[in-house]
Amino acid sequence: MKIPQGFLAGGIAGGIKKRGRDLGLILCPDSAITAGVFTGNLNCSYSVEVCRKNIDNDIRALLVNSGNANCFTHSSGLKDTLQLCADCARQLGIKKEQLLFASTGIIGKKLPFSVITRNIPGLVRELRPAIDDFAESIMTTDTCRKIVSRTVRSGRDKVTVTGCVKGAGMINPSMATMLAFILTDARISRPVLQKSLSVAVDKSFNSISVDGCMSTNDSVIVMASNKGAKISDAKSKSLFSRALQEVCIELAKLIVKDGEGATKFLQIDIKKAKNEKEARLAFQCIAGSLLFQTALYGENPNWGRVIAALGHAGIKVSETKFRVAATSLKEKNIVMTVYLGRGTASWRGWCCDITPEYVKINAGYS
Amino acid sequence: MKIPQGFLAGGIAGGIKKRGRDLGLILCPDSAITAGVFTGNLNCSYSVEVCRKNIDNDIRALLVNSGNANCFTHSSGLKDTLQLCADCARQLGIKKEQLLFASTGIIGKKLPFSVITRNIPGLVRELRPAIDDFAESIMTTDTCRKIVSRTVRSGRDKVTVTGCVKGAGMINPSMATMLAFILTDARISRPVLQKSLSVAVDKSFNSISVDGCMSTNDSVIVMASNKGAKISDAKSKSLFSRALQEVCIELAKLIVKDGEGATKFLQIDIKKAKNEKEARLAFQCIAGSLLFQTALYGENPNWGRVIAALGHAGIKVSETKFRVAATSLKEKNIVMTVYLGRGTASWRGWCCDITPEYVKINAGYS
Repeated sequence: MKIPQGFLAGGIAGGIKKRGRDLGLILCPDSAITAGVFTGNLNCSYSVEVCRKNIDNDIRALLVNSGNANCFTHSSGLKDTLQLCADCARQLGIKKEQLLFASTGIIGKKLPFSVITRNIPGLVRELRPAIDDFAESIMTTDTCRKIVSRTVRSGRDKVTVTGCVKGAGMINPSMATMLAFILTDARISRPVLQKSLSVAVDKSFNSISVDGCMSTNDSVIVMASNKGAKISDAKSKSLFSRALQEVCIELAKLIVKDGEGATKFLQIDIKKAKNEKEARLAFQCIAGSLLFQTALYGENPNWGRVIAALGHAGIKVSETKFRVAATSLKEKNIVMTVYLGRGTASWRGWCCDITPEYVKINAGYS
Repeated sequence: MKIPQGFLAGGIAGGIKKRGRDLGLILCPDSAITAGVFTGNLNCSYSVEVCRKNIDNDIRALLVNSGNANCFTHSSGLKDTLQLCADCARQLGIKKEQLLFASTGIIGKKLPFSVITRNIPGLVRELRPAIDDFAESIMTTDTCRKIVSRTVRSGRDKVTVTGCVKGAGMINPSMATMLAFILTDARISRPVLQKSLSVAVDKSFNSISVDGCMSTNDSVIVMASNKGAKISDAKSKSLFSRALQEVCIELAKLIVKDGEGATKFLQIDIKKAKNEKEARLAFQCIAGSLLFQTALYGENPNWGRVIAALGHAGIKVSETKFRVAATSLKEKNIVMTVYLGRGTASWRGWCCDITPEYVKINAGYS
């Protein structure tokens, strides 16, 4: 898949994982306007801390490793990570404030910093105007690369939004993170980019559920290279936001579809909620109910578990107004509509089933 | 098991379930001081609503059915349940305000009220000064009856506390409730009984986790027949509270041990928390983490998942102060101590692992 103008990307096998690509680099030689959304987990990765520190600068490179979360390893973990970033930035010929760094993999195991620094020259040699190798390098136990692209016309100009993601495929025990990197050639201001991203993340990555666990490393980063159409008036902003949201939703759905051990892909449409907050909570409590997810696996139309999940979350529904409608549970792709009968607000989200295979995978069975 | 003085109990097969005892009755001819703790689920069973309404009265009988949750079935569900209770009370020769009613089983399926009313005479004929048949009649998919008893001396008098419980054994799909009924011959006031129960429930039933799902029917009820030792001074109150707490803790542990598909029984001791609230939250977020519970099943010492669960719950820990110590994960019974390194408060709780068998059971596999 071609990368948007202004970017180069690559991915190599550096030796952090036992096999496969585990180091990825995106370069934006003329610098990119960047925005991000990061995990709310208080015990977060040192790599996330670096991103939070640098995200408002003009970014020239994004480095990613898979196989190690770079999280909760030693008391100077952040200091050492900043030193690693400085070393890598020097080799890339950029300032250390212009580098973002993301990690995914096992928590609590020291990241082999020297493996990363000595692989930078090889990584630079592999840079191409294509995103595929990079998308592969961020995978841990995902079963496939996940790339989505949209091009929209804004006046005479075009804007391309291309993203890749890794999901919570935890076949190798201890891996559990969602990372998404989205590149665009849009000419856009940072506030507009951040706002578009925040809205898109809410409707996509924050509207999916696999197992209810929040990673220490979750990151969604969007970089704009300033080479394509200008996004400034209301119409172009709306076009861009829609393209970004579409890319995020498709990437989010790919995560759920590749959920570990999943056999079902369910879209939940919450309707007639009191307000949007309640609609979203209703989605989250249903999608996050282990009893509901196992019933889904069993193709068991056990709506009582939906009632129980809603009541647990503080949403009281009435026997005469509440209703559930669903397509056949025997299919792999299912759409379920839950009418709360409390108002007019809606929310849409996606989840998968929890299966015996999920348990085996996460138990670390060999 | 002998029942405390002042009570009679029985259980019969009434035909609500396909097989086995499903109707239970406890009679206290001279009336009992009663206290209760009920589910926080807002979509609760009509039976729970009846208990909340009557619990402060002098209670003469407690009726229980298993196989049907009597929850979320029709708009006049509460009214019809009150009518059922009035019919049963009349047959028992007591006032309708003197009856408690509890249910467990499938949600959303109409309770066959006439099956219950026509079985009352047969149930009364089976009343004995023993709790065993009653303890069996409240089981849904529990693999065994769960009864615990303690007798303590208060001065020259004795007090007996005998309880039985049904757990979240959900081998038959759609069943998921915890019911506990505790009988004592103590002479005690309602406020002291309620306070002792609330403290005991916090340290026992509210400190266990099987799958994080909150039932619509959870109820813990204690009835005091006023036939044994007087509980009024500080010493006797403390003796009684300790006995009640011990019974509750042992019953709670029996629930976890009989958790569906469970292969591990884990005690989690949280130490060095900032305060008791945080210690308890730490227990809950670890015990409720699906990733942690599957790692437990895999005998996989993946402490990174403990870190991630704590951070998700908003508890930031430090690399130098945080520590986990555990007995061998290869054993069935495991004790894990988690030192948060944030203060001096503690909490103890119990949980089990999540296994492929759990998923199969709850998927409704035949």
